[in-house]
Amino acid sequence: MMRFALQARFTLSGDVSGLTKEFEKFIAETNESILKKGPEKLAVIEKYAIEKGTLSLFITSEGTLRPHNALLQIKNALSKDLGKTHHVGVRGITIENYMISFDLAHEPLKEVTIPFAEVKIQGKQATMVLSDVSEEFLRRNYIDRMMNRVKEKVENQYYEGKAEFWKLIWKSKEKPSIWTQDPTEQMESLGWLKQGPTKGKWFYRPQAAAILKTMEHIAIKEVLEPLGFQEVIESHIKPFEIWLKTGHMEGMPYEFYYVAEPKTRDAKDWERFIDLTKITKEVPVEELQKNLSAPTAGICYAQCPMIYWSFKGKTIAETSLPVSVYDKTAISARYESGGRHGIERVDEFHRIEPVYIGTREQLLSLREKLLERYKHVFNDIFDLEWRMAWVTPWYMQQAGKIADEGTQDTGTIDFEAYMPYRGTRQDSEWLEFQNLSILGDKYITAFNIKAQKSVLWSGCSGIGLERWTTAFLAQKGLDPKSWPDGFKKYLQNLPEGIQFL
Amino acid sequence: MMRFALQARFTLSGDVSGLTKEFEKFIAETNESILKKGPEKLAVIEKYAIEKGTLSLFITSEGTLRPHNALLQIKNALSKDLGKTHHVGVRGITIENYMISFDLAHEPLKEVTIPFAEVKIQGKQATMVLSDVSEEFLRRNYIDRMMNRVKEKVENQYYEGKAEFWKLIWKSKEKPSIWTQDPTEQMESLGWLKQGPTKGKWFYRPQAAAILKTMEHIAIKEVLEPLGFQEVIESHIKPFEIWLKTGHMEGMPYEFYYVAEPKTRDAKDWERFIDLTKITKEVPVEELQKNLSAPTAGICYAQCPMIYWSFKGKTIAETSLPVSVYDKTAISARYESGGRHGIERVDEFHRIEPVYIGTREQLLSLREKLLERYKHVFNDIFDLEWRMAWVTPWYMQQAGKIADEGTQDTGTIDFEAYMPYRGTRQDSEWLEFQNLSILGDKYITAFNIKAQKSVLWSGCSGIGLERWTTAFLAQKGLDPKSWPDGFKKYLQNLPEGIQFL
Repeated sequence: MMRFALQARFTLSGDVSGLTKEFEKFIAETNESILKKGPEKLAVIEKYAIEKGTLSLFITSEGTLRPHNALLQIKNALSKDLGKTHHVGVRGITIENYMISFDLAHEPLKEVTIPFAEVKIQGKQATMVLSDVSEEFLRRNYIDRMMNRVKEKVENQYYEGKAEFWKLIWKSKEKPSIWTQDPTEQMESLGWLKQGPTKGKWFYRPQAAAILKTMEHIAIKEVLEPLGFQEVIESHIKPFEIWLKTGHMEGMPYEFYYVAEPKTRDAKDWERFIDLTKITKEVPVEELQKNLSAPTAGICYAQCPMIYWSFKGKTIAETSLPVSVYDKTAISARYESGGRHGIERVDEFHRIEPVYIGTREQLLSLREKLLERYKHVFNDIFDLEWRMAWVTPWYMQQAGKIADEGTQDTGTIDFEAYMPYRGTRQDSEWLEFQNLSILGDKYITAFNIKAQKSVLWSGCSGIGLERWTTAFLAQKGLDPKSWPDGFKKYLQNLPEGIQFL
Repeated sequence: MMRFALQARFTLSGDVSGLTKEFEKFIAETNESILKKGPEKLAVIEKYAIEKGTLSLFITSEGTLRPHNALLQIKNALSKDLGKTHHVGVRGITIENYMISFDLAHEPLKEVTIPFAEVKIQGKQATMVLSDVSEEFLRRNYIDRMMNRVKEKVENQYYEGKAEFWKLIWKSKEKPSIWTQDPTEQMESLGWLKQGPTKGKWFYRPQAAAILKTMEHIAIKEVLEPLGFQEVIESHIKPFEIWLKTGHMEGMPYEFYYVAEPKTRDAKDWERFIDLTKITKEVPVEELQKNLSAPTAGICYAQCPMIYWSFKGKTIAETSLPVSVYDKTAISARYESGGRHGIERVDEFHRIEPVYIGTREQLLSLREKLLERYKHVFNDIFDLEWRMAWVTPWYMQQAGKIADEGTQDTGTIDFEAYMPYRGTRQDSEWLEFQNLSILGDKYITAFNIKAQKSVLWSGCSGIGLERWTTAFLAQKGLDPKSWPDGFKKYLQNLPEGIQFL
C-alpha cells in the first residue's frame, strides 16, 4: 500500500482572499477532473486554504497519480483560471511537507538513510518525510528515485555477503603441474618485472613484456582475426556522462582513477606553482588544487562503454551486422586498495575488449564461435587446466546488483584457470582469466543504437592480458623449454633483457 | 656584487645577561674562525646584543659564506660553548630580517616576484628581503634557489617570444602533392574518425585504426627490430617524484592531465555519493571532491622518464650497453587548450618512445643508424617530402628553458613534413612528426644510473603515430590505390568499417 500526503503552498501575484467562491469551485472541479480518471480517484485535495496571496493545499493519493505530479498539473490549471478571470498569476510552489509511505518486500536488517528525506521503517512499511522541497526537485523525478533507492537498499541488505551465482559449464582435463611458484614473485626476483612506480602498477622489462605481448598477438591471430573482428581505437579517458549511462558511475565510483584537467594552460596562472616547485623541490599541493578543475572523467574501467558511445544515436546498416570490433589500446585502471596481488590483481592492466552488436541469433551464434576459438587457444596453444562457469552477469555486478541466475541467452561466462601456487584444485581459488557476456539490449537502449530493421542486442568479452599471462605461467613455468609447442610457435625464446650488477 | 645582511635571534634556555665577557669572546672568536678562511673574511658578525635569554646577531657577507649557512654553524658552536661552560642550550633561531642583494646579467623588462620574499630591482641590482624565516627554511636551501629563480625569471623575459633555434640538416626532394585536403576533416566526414568523447581525443573506427596501427607496425619492423631494440611496458601513470627529477613538474604543470585516487575503496564511505548519483542522475561534484585524495600523479607526458626511473640506482653490465628499449603501450596526454587541431595536435596520443643508454660513442653511432632507418621509412616506404633540423634540445624546451644552439653531440633533431593543406612549402608550417635526441648525462645523473666502467649518456626518440599518420595522409591522400608501393606492402586494403544509415 502506498500513501502520499503533500502540503503545498502556491504563491500568487495578488490578493485572492475575496475569491472564496471561485476557489471552492476550482478545488471541486480539480478533484473531479485532473485528479480523477473516470470513476477512479487518482488523488484528492483534502483541504485547502486561501489567505491574501497564497493558496495552501493538502493533497493525498494512494499512488496512481502521485501528488507531486498532480501539483504541477494543478499549477497549470490554476494559472490559466486565475489569469483569465482575475489577472492573478502563480509565482511559485513551496512544498512544506511531503510524507510518502510505501511497502517493502522485506523488513530491513539495519537502518536505511538517504539524502533529502527522513526515512522511518516499521516492519515492511517505509515512510519518507521531505520538507521544504522546491518545484524543481519535484519536476526532476527525484522523489520516485528516492523511493526506489530505499527499496533497493533494503534488498541489498539481504544480498550482501551472499555467495554469487556460479554454475559449471565445462571443465578441461587435469593437467600435471610443472611448478607451484607464484609467477609474479619469480619474475620479480629474476628482474623481468619491477613493481611501481605507483601502487598496483608494474614495469615490464623485455622478458615479461615479450610474454604479455605474445598473449595479445595470440588473441588477435587465433580468436579475433579469424572471426572477422575489426580493430578500433578509443580514448582511455572516460567522461562521467558515459558512466552515468552505463551505471558504472553509481556502481563502483570507489574503484575509478579520476582525471583532473588544469583550469588553464596559461603559464602565468601557474607561476606561483612553478616558483614553489622550483624553490622547494616539492609539489605544492594546495596551490595545485587551486589550479585544477574538478574531475569530469576517469581512466578507462572497461572499454565497451566507449565503444557503445561511438554508436550513440546511430542506425547501423543491416549489412554491417553483427558489428564485431575490439579495442586493445585503451589502458584500464581500477583502484584496488587492499586486494592487490602480483600482476593478476593490479590497479593498471591491459585488456583486449571485443564488442559485438547484432540480433539475438547472430550473437548466440557468435558466442559459439568465440567459445570454440577460446577453447582452441586454452587447450591447443596454452595446454591449460581451466573451466567455464555461468556467473552473475558482468553488468549487474558492475552496477552493484546481484542476479540469481544466468540464462542461456544473456549472461556472463567466466573462464577460470587452476593456479597451482595457490593450493589444491579443490580448495584454492581459481583465477578468472577471461569472460564472455551477452547483455541483451541494456546498452543498446542506453545509447539509443538502432538497426535498419533488426532488434539489436550486444555483448562483450574481456581478454585480460595480465590474467592470460599469469594463468599460463602459473601452470607452465618461466622456462620456455617447458612451454607447450603451440605456445612456442609464438614465442620460442625470451629476449635477453638488460643485465645489472 | 653580492651582499647579504641577516638579523637573527637565538633563543636560549637560560638568562645570559651576566655573560657579557664570554659573548664578546665568542663573537670575536667566531669572526676569526668560522667566518674566516686564512686571511679571507667569509662573513662578519657586525653587531650582537644579549638580553636575558636571547642573543641577537647581525651578520653580513659578500657571498663566499652565505650568512644563512654561517648561522647554522654558529648555532652549533654556541651550543657547544654555552652547554659546556654554563649549561645553557640554544632552543631555536628566528631570522627576523634577511636582505640579499645580487647582480643580474640584464635589467629586467618587467616586474619580477617570487614567493617568500619581496623583490626589488634597480638596474641590474636585485634585492630580496625576507622576514620571519624559520631555521628549517634556511636548512632546505630555499634561499639559494630563490636567488636563482629571480635570475632565471629576468633571463626568461629576454628569451620570451624569441624564435627557437632551428638549423636545417637535410631535406628530401620536392614531391608532387596528390591532394590539398586536411586528412582529419576528410576522415571525419567519411566516418573513419569520430571526435571525443572529451576534448582533443578521438575515436578511431576501423579504417583510421588500421592506418595508425600500420604506422606502429612499420616503426617496429623497419626501425626498432632491425636495430635490436627490446620492448618494455611501463605504467602510464606518472608519480610527481619522477617529474620532479626530470624537471617536467616545474616545466609544464599546465599541460598535464592529473590523476586522483579515491580516499577509500570502502563502499560505505561512498554511500552518499552513490545515493545522490542514483537520485539526481548527475555526478555530485562536491561530494566527489570530498572522497578523492589530492593528485600525486598524472597521465604519461613522455615515456622516457619512467624508463629512466626503471634503471634508478642500477649499475648496468657493460655487455648490455648500449641499452636500447622502447615503450609503445603507455598512452600520453597533454592538455592542449586552444591549440588543438585534427589528430595532429591532440590531448591524447600514441607514441613509440625508444630510449638508449650507452657511452657517447655508442650513442653517436646509434644515432647514425636510427637516422638511416628513419630515412629508409620516410623515403622508401612513405615517399614523403620532409626535412631534418637541429632544434632546441627537447629536454630544455620541456623544462621551459631555451638553448642557443644544438651541438653535434647532444641536442635534438626534428623531422618535419610538408603539409600541402596548410599552404605553400615556403609559407606554411611543416609538421614535426618525429624527433631524435641525445641528452648527455642529464637523466643519467638525475636517476643515478651507472655502468660497470663506462661513462653513460642517454637519449630518446619520439615516434608519434598520429603525427606519422597525418604527415603521410596529408601528402598521399586517403585512397590506398594512390599510396606508394612500399606502404602498400604493409597496408593494401582498408577494413570495411561499419556502415550507418
